[in-house]
Amino acid sequence: FQKNKVMCLQSKYMLNSLVNKFMALPVTDLDDLIKNPNDTATKMELMIMETQSKVCKAIESLEAEGQKFEVDKWNKESGTGGGVTCVLQDGKVFEKAGVNVSVVHGSLTEGAEKQMRARGRDFKRFDDGSLPFIAMGVSSVIHPTNPHVPTIHFNFRYFEVTGADKKKTWWFGGGTDLTPMYLDQNDVKHFHTELKKACDKHDVQYYPKFKKWCDEYFTIPIRGERRGVGGIFFDDIEGPDEESALAFVTSCAEAIIPCYVPIVVKNKNKSFTSEQKQWQQLRRGRYVEFNLIYDRGTKFGFQTPGARIESILMSLPLTARWQYMHTPKLGSAENELLDVLKSPREWV
Amino acid sequence: FQKNKVMCLQSKYMLNSLVNKFMALPVTDLDDLIKNPNDTATKMELMIMETQSKVCKAIESLEAEGQKFEVDKWNKESGTGGGVTCVLQDGKVFEKAGVNVSVVHGSLTEGAEKQMRARGRDFKRFDDGSLPFIAMGVSSVIHPTNPHVPTIHFNFRYFEVTGADKKKTWWFGGGTDLTPMYLDQNDVKHFHTELKKACDKHDVQYYPKFKKWCDEYFTIPIRGERRGVGGIFFDDIEGPDEESALAFVTSCAEAIIPCYVPIVVKNKNKSFTSEQKQWQQLRRGRYVEFNLIYDRGTKFGFQTPGARIESILMSLPLTARWQYMHTPKLGSAENELLDVLKSPREWV
Repeated sequence: FQKNKVMCLQSKYMLNSLVNKFMALPVTDLDDLIKNPNDTATKMELMIMETQSKVCKAIESLEAEGQKFEVDKWNKESGTGGGVTCVLQDGKVFEKAGVNVSVVHGSLTEGAEKQMRARGRDFKRFDDGSLPFIAMGVSSVIHPTNPHVPTIHFNFRYFEVTGADKKKTWWFGGGTDLTPMYLDQNDVKHFHTELKKACDKHDVQYYPKFKKWCDEYFTIPIRGERRGVGGIFFDDIEGPDEESALAFVTSCAEAIIPCYVPIVVKNKNKSFTSEQKQWQQLRRGRYVEFNLIYDRGTKFGFQTPGARIESILMSLPLTARWQYMHTPKLGSAENELLDVLKSPREWV
Repeated sequence: FQKNKVMCLQSKYMLNSLVNKFMALPVTDLDDLIKNPNDTATKMELMIMETQSKVCKAIESLEAEGQKFEVDKWNKESGTGGGVTCVLQDGKVFEKAGVNVSVVHGSLTEGAEKQMRARGRDFKRFDDGSLPFIAMGVSSVIHPTNPHVPTIHFNFRYFEVTGADKKKTWWFGGGTDLTPMYLDQNDVKHFHTELKKACDKHDVQYYPKFKKWCDEYFTIPIRGERRGVGGIFFDDIEGPDEESALAFVTSCAEAIIPCYVPIVVKNKNKSFTSEQKQWQQLRRGRYVEFNLIYDRGTKFGFQTPGARIESILMSLPLTARWQYMHTPKLGSAENELLDVLKSPREWV
């Protein structure tokens, strides 16, 4: 994959033909991308644009009546980056599906620097006080209409800081997790198996470690529940080297379609009752709680001046419900799901 | 009002007849209440129980098909207080109405003490390290079914800390605010006029000050909007003396029914379109955003170990909606509301 990208970049013609398949032009000018074909930032930007495009096309191909993604290419006012937000809303199969790419350049605030130092990183500011960074990522939440089809979320991100001493500090983060409203153990096993395969290609310690991290991260403490049945979650991936780390994240991104699409195909035409739809809405309420109260990326967005709020809150479901003291009956399918949300299991 | 309460408390028989009108027994044992008839804590607990009961009965009287509040009396596990949560759900006139009373005793954590000291208060801990407090309040959110009927929220609370030097530090907080989905200027004027009347009885500087505070408090910074058309909001009311402060808060509580019920009666049978219902759902999404991201009381609840989460999140609407890039047309009724949410007005 990486090699192909570098080859493509050797000619503007080849780059153009790659970019033509994207939902929109990359955030960074093609002229700038072609100048730095070997930079991890260049490769990552092309990877996240390609992931966005592949996922959007897969989702569109599952839609029954030709619903398409709306594509918004936006720039931050100050000219320090931008993004491409794709949303399909009120579809027949998908109630709301969003896939967002953003690429932001800037100078680290002292607050952000402090947080990064607390995680063991060290930087040297320039004489003018600046500390340049690049942050980029693709993130997506797909909320299907049918309560028998789970919601999926994924995010892959890259961060790079260049100090006055020319030292480049970089790391990747990301993950993928599934939120079913009804538990189909085979679907969950399939999902985790595909993620494990993607991890195992790079390091057999990755899956168990990142599966556990995912169960911990997607916790709603006020409910004593996980948001869903997990998947993988990782941060601070800064080794063994840039190329290997990017290759790992790329494998994870390439696993999205095989881990999710078969589950959608299997369940999207199942019949459901209004009670099942209502349960889905209640679970979506929990999704909103997690995203607004706990999710680090969302909270970071809220605190970022000039952030594009519609792109951040694209992750919220079209509809949600909060019902006082809703308690599923013992032995019900709804309660079976709750059991797993309260005590995460091993699936592979 | 205060005098009556004291008289009532002079006999257990009289107290019982007062309490019989409540939705449930007060949190504090009647025997303990009757022992301390002149304590502000006793008077406040009876006031908030009475407010809960009056509001619940007013709401029930507006319901078309006899829907009633579900009443949950609960105790904190550690025996340090409890509450009475009343919720009416899926009514014909009200989609979800909740009125919650809680009375909690405990010892201030160092974190809470630090926050209070930062607001200029001073305490002396007991030799065993404890610093006893009482916190109590009534809070309510009423979400009607019809998009032409606004949502109302109110909250009245009392805090008391007793130090080792026997010094009692106390203060009141509270407020009432209105969240219409469509702007009816007469309704908003009526609402603010009733609140102003309640304030003016005690201090003519209260209304302008607390109206402004309300506009500031109920802001959703990520949206550049207020949650609604405001009302009054106040905190740290610690003068001129306990009795006067309680009398002011009592006047505010007594204003709830006259400021809100006429608006419900006027609008509850108006016809509405599915587009208007959808707009209501979108506005409810914003309500959820404010409550989960910004509301101090909600956030405090999230951080309180052993807090009853169902009573805290009773404030959330039964249903809500998030639609990517929803923008009302210029000149539409929806846009007229947005104008006010972006630039608060004077109503009285």
